Amino acid sequence: MGDIRVENLKKPVDVAEYLFRRLHEVGVRSIHGVPGDYNLVALDYLPNCGLKWVGSVNELNAAYAADGYARIKGISALLTTFGVGELSAINGVAGAFSEHIPVVHIVGCPSTVSQRNGMLLHHTLGNGDFNVFAKMSGEISCDVAKLNNPSEIASQIDHALRECWIRSRPVYIMLPTDMVKAKVEGALLDTPIDLTQPPNDPEAEDYVVDVVMKYLNDAKKPVVLVDACAIRHRVLSEVHDFIDKTKLPVFVTPMGKGAINEDHPSYGGVYVGEGSHPAQAKDIVESSDLILSIGALKSDFNTAGFSYRTSQLNTIDFHSDHCVVRYSTYPGVNMKGVLQKLADRVDPSKLAVADSPEVFNEVPRSSDKSQVITQAWLWPRVGQFLRKNDVVVTETGTANFGIWDTRFPSGVTALNQVLWGSIGWSVGACQGAALAVKDSNADRRVILFVGDGSFQLTAQELSTIIRHGLKPIIFVICNEGFTIERYIHGMDAGYNDIAEWNFKALVDVFGGAKTSKKFMLRTKDEVNALFADDAFNAASCLQFVELFMPKEDAPRALVLTAEASAKNNAKQ
Amino acid sequence: MGDIRVENLKKPVDVAEYLFRRLHEVGVRSIHGVPGDYNLVALDYLPNCGLKWVGSVNELNAAYAADGYARIKGISALLTTFGVGELSAINGVAGAFSEHIPVVHIVGCPSTVSQRNGMLLHHTLGNGDFNVFAKMSGEISCDVAKLNNPSEIASQIDHALRECWIRSRPVYIMLPTDMVKAKVEGALLDTPIDLTQPPNDPEAEDYVVDVVMKYLNDAKKPVVLVDACAIRHRVLSEVHDFIDKTKLPVFVTPMGKGAINEDHPSYGGVYVGEGSHPAQAKDIVESSDLILSIGALKSDFNTAGFSYRTSQLNTIDFHSDHCVVRYSTYPGVNMKGVLQKLADRVDPSKLAVADSPEVFNEVPRSSDKSQVITQAWLWPRVGQFLRKNDVVVTETGTANFGIWDTRFPSGVTALNQVLWGSIGWSVGACQGAALAVKDSNADRRVILFVGDGSFQLTAQELSTIIRHGLKPIIFVICNEGFTIERYIHGMDAGYNDIAEWNFKALVDVFGGAKTSKKFMLRTKDEVNALFADDAFNAASCLQFVELFMPKEDAPRALVLTAEASAKNNAKQ
Repeated sequence: MGDIRVENLKKPVDVAEYLFRRLHEVGVRSIHGVPGDYNLVALDYLPNCGLKWVGSVNELNAAYAADGYARIKGISALLTTFGVGELSAINGVAGAFSEHIPVVHIVGCPSTVSQRNGMLLHHTLGNGDFNVFAKMSGEISCDVAKLNNPSEIASQIDHALRECWIRSRPVYIMLPTDMVKAKVEGALLDTPIDLTQPPNDPEAEDYVVDVVMKYLNDAKKPVVLVDACAIRHRVLSEVHDFIDKTKLPVFVTPMGKGAINEDHPSYGGVYVGEGSHPAQAKDIVESSDLILSIGALKSDFNTAGFSYRTSQLNTIDFHSDHCVVRYSTYPGVNMKGVLQKLADRVDPSKLAVADSPEVFNEVPRSSDKSQVITQAWLWPRVGQFLRKNDVVVTETGTANFGIWDTRFPSGVTALNQVLWGSIGWSVGACQGAALAVKDSNADRRVILFVGDGSFQLTAQELSTIIRHGLKPIIFVICNEGFTIERYIHGMDAGYNDIAEWNFKALVDVFGGAKTSKKFMLRTKDEVNALFADDAFNAASCLQFVELFMPKEDAPRALVLTAEASAKNNAKQ
Repeated sequence: MGDIRVENLKKPVDVAEYLFRRLHEVGVRSIHGVPGDYNLVALDYLPNCGLKWVGSVNELNAAYAADGYARIKGISALLTTFGVGELSAINGVAGAFSEHIPVVHIVGCPSTVSQRNGMLLHHTLGNGDFNVFAKMSGEISCDVAKLNNPSEIASQIDHALRECWIRSRPVYIMLPTDMVKAKVEGALLDTPIDLTQPPNDPEAEDYVVDVVMKYLNDAKKPVVLVDACAIRHRVLSEVHDFIDKTKLPVFVTPMGKGAINEDHPSYGGVYVGEGSHPAQAKDIVESSDLILSIGALKSDFNTAGFSYRTSQLNTIDFHSDHCVVRYSTYPGVNMKGVLQKLADRVDPSKLAVADSPEVFNEVPRSSDKSQVITQAWLWPRVGQFLRKNDVVVTETGTANFGIWDTRFPSGVTALNQVLWGSIGWSVGACQGAALAVKDSNADRRVILFVGDGSFQLTAQELSTIIRHGLKPIIFVICNEGFTIERYIHGMDAGYNDIAEWNFKALVDVFGGAKTSKKFMLRTKDEVNALFADDAFNAASCLQFVELFMPKEDAPRALVLTAEASAKNNAKQ
């Protein structure tokens, strides 16, 4: 039992209680996961720590849900059981790592005694190695804490949670069954974990600010481009201050969508190279002589297949752990302090401020008189349907590309997984997001767009949504399979087809018949009617919509990105 | 493109064709997986290589299905896409590693060019590391082959498939998109891969055989105990020869169930310490002065919580890579050669051969007059229902423990995951097993017993079963949640409850309304009637049975194993 003596503790608390109180302190209110024999005793502690147990239908769904929850609530926790549970979740946690989402993954594992004795337990590889899964998770976690010794556990937990928050990445905590009730110093709980970003070296920070100011004041057509890591590393308030003060044209990338109030007069649309919307966004950004690029994450799908035509000579990059001015790198300088100082010090009167292009939700009319619901028609139409503060979840596939053409009302939060791109993610993420909204007592609609192919992977998380009385609007785009893949390879290939499901009947199967509404939309008129319906818009219960669209129809941005992807795959 | 020159190849074939022809050669006929952008081009090669694409609903289900397929067909293949796909499958593959199942996991990954350039592609961690997932899979694979250089690829593939078969464990093959169409030497395909077990050193083998013979001839009450690895490492034919010749009493463990014809006069039941069935099995094995233990895998659940009361002084262990006689270890001596020589050389007239206890499917009557379907009543009743050559899949939970009390007809193959114990496994495994039966043109029924809690995790694999016209009989034990967990901890805890589903309606949702039959059984009479129904027994279509049983009722073996598990978890 380590070298801690219970009689020396000022306020002895059980390890599980310590851990859960800390999670509550940093903002977690619901814990996702699946019960398993190595985590059951820990689960008993949740209610008294103010935490709700979600109990997803499987661990991958739970991990996706934890990802979605963290994107709304700032941080989340996932609790699985050793081996089988944690590995089922690992793709979801890897996605959180890839996409910079702070998820605390707690794994209930065999007792330290069993581990020391190398016992041949169920949920093991049968080789006595109890560290193999931690090693695997270590590859996708920014901290690994094995809670094996009570004298270290409190500081291990505090460190892990701090790392998770500051680095905005998952951490992995192994909680052995015999440590759940071990005692640690509860007096530590009187002091909250310090989650503040370590400040930059003031001299280095000032130096960077001065350099940026110099280029900024000299620039003839400066623009701001906001990407994923601006959201993930929590600099939006600094960015908003800077934009409000300077009125510089500001653009977002697909992963940065939602970072900027799209009603703001400075908002100029989505810049994503060839896939930009509106088209002028491309011209303005690419002809700019100074791009202030904030939190860039230039992945293939976030750049429409590496189609940026910008020069590093015209770019200043702000990142969470370094800044780059043209080709000069400033390691260790975090953008947060730099951006705040820039916002404080910039003199708008010295800047050349161009107009931003206007961004409309232009629903195509002339080109298409038919009632068929096309991708080109849908996404701007969705922009008209959305309301202030909606949470919009889009799945990898047509939705993730279509949404580039949707202008949001103010306050909309967009959830997507453009980098990791794990199909099925959005169903779990929608559950997590809806729960986070509920846990925040916020009055926000949660709206999911998911393709039929992707929905099938994680369909049963709809059961958890129903079980917890969540009220998202779920649009399943019924277009007979993996359209994004058809555009990469195999337009008519059988492997891109899926089994035909009666999707909306799932609501009844999962016990939602009485508490949900179901819709089938096959025409534009039906879409228009539903979008105009007050009861539908009120979103006062789960609403499940089958939206029928043509199999081989794709958003323009998807077509060109898929083409680039196919080329890249074949390149030799 | 490496240092291979196409003009020097006698019969140039594309890498994908080479790989798939080899898989066909070793017995694979269907490939499980989910299409993804890094594996699409490879999928085009399947039909011409005599392989059918399954296209499961998600990767974890596909991995479970591949596991089930391999347990029937000897080996299987799983094809996923980089990052997202392979990690979703990794728990299923880890299960195959833990349980010694040969699964070839092929991962379509970004091109070698993209990898060299460290491109920021979707499905990556965004850090330019393209080897991180291979490293993770390396922990649960007996070989990792990165097909990066055409001059090495043919031998890499041959080596991986051989390792997979011989070591009966998963292998991991990374197939970059630009290697799919690279040329390799097709003439190699004219020579099949050598899958024969490397022979033992003859002297060492003879030495072990002599020692065993000496102990065997001296023993007063010798018995044979057959466990998992006897099945996995393919020594059943040797074991059967030995039993037929010696007529020694033979017992199986839970993981060894199905290894021995349970109609055989020498068959004495399931030995599993305190959980043995019949009870005499425990007495006979534990009072034996020589246990020939073949392929033992003494995990907690396979020993009813380490409740063996046997002595190593009375035991000879036969393993795939060593043998142990009492306390003398013979490393590198594989049981196969030893067992064959033992069968050849043993002189039955010199052996003390006791009678085996009789094993009945004794359906309790007197103690329980009610119509409630109890666990104690069900499992022997199932034994009466089963037919020759059935394939019986049992899920972790009540089914896996209940089946200890079921005596099988001859030729029954039992699938379970007693060591790894990942809930939800059995639904995928059932799909794979049913497909393997179909691919073998065998006339065997596939019968699944799964609890409602476990079924929810992987429910949508039912869709694949329907899509491919498979005809298993699926019993979902509806007992309101995780009964096995209730017995470990939290009998009435909310976290062990599940959402209430209308399970049988899933058949319709997934498109099986016209091609399937559905049943609900709430009483013993209903069970008896269905088991007596010829049409049901003919199993000529998918049959889905909801079997309602009490929430807090568990097989006797589960109760004592769970108790041991809870104690072990708490031990300090």
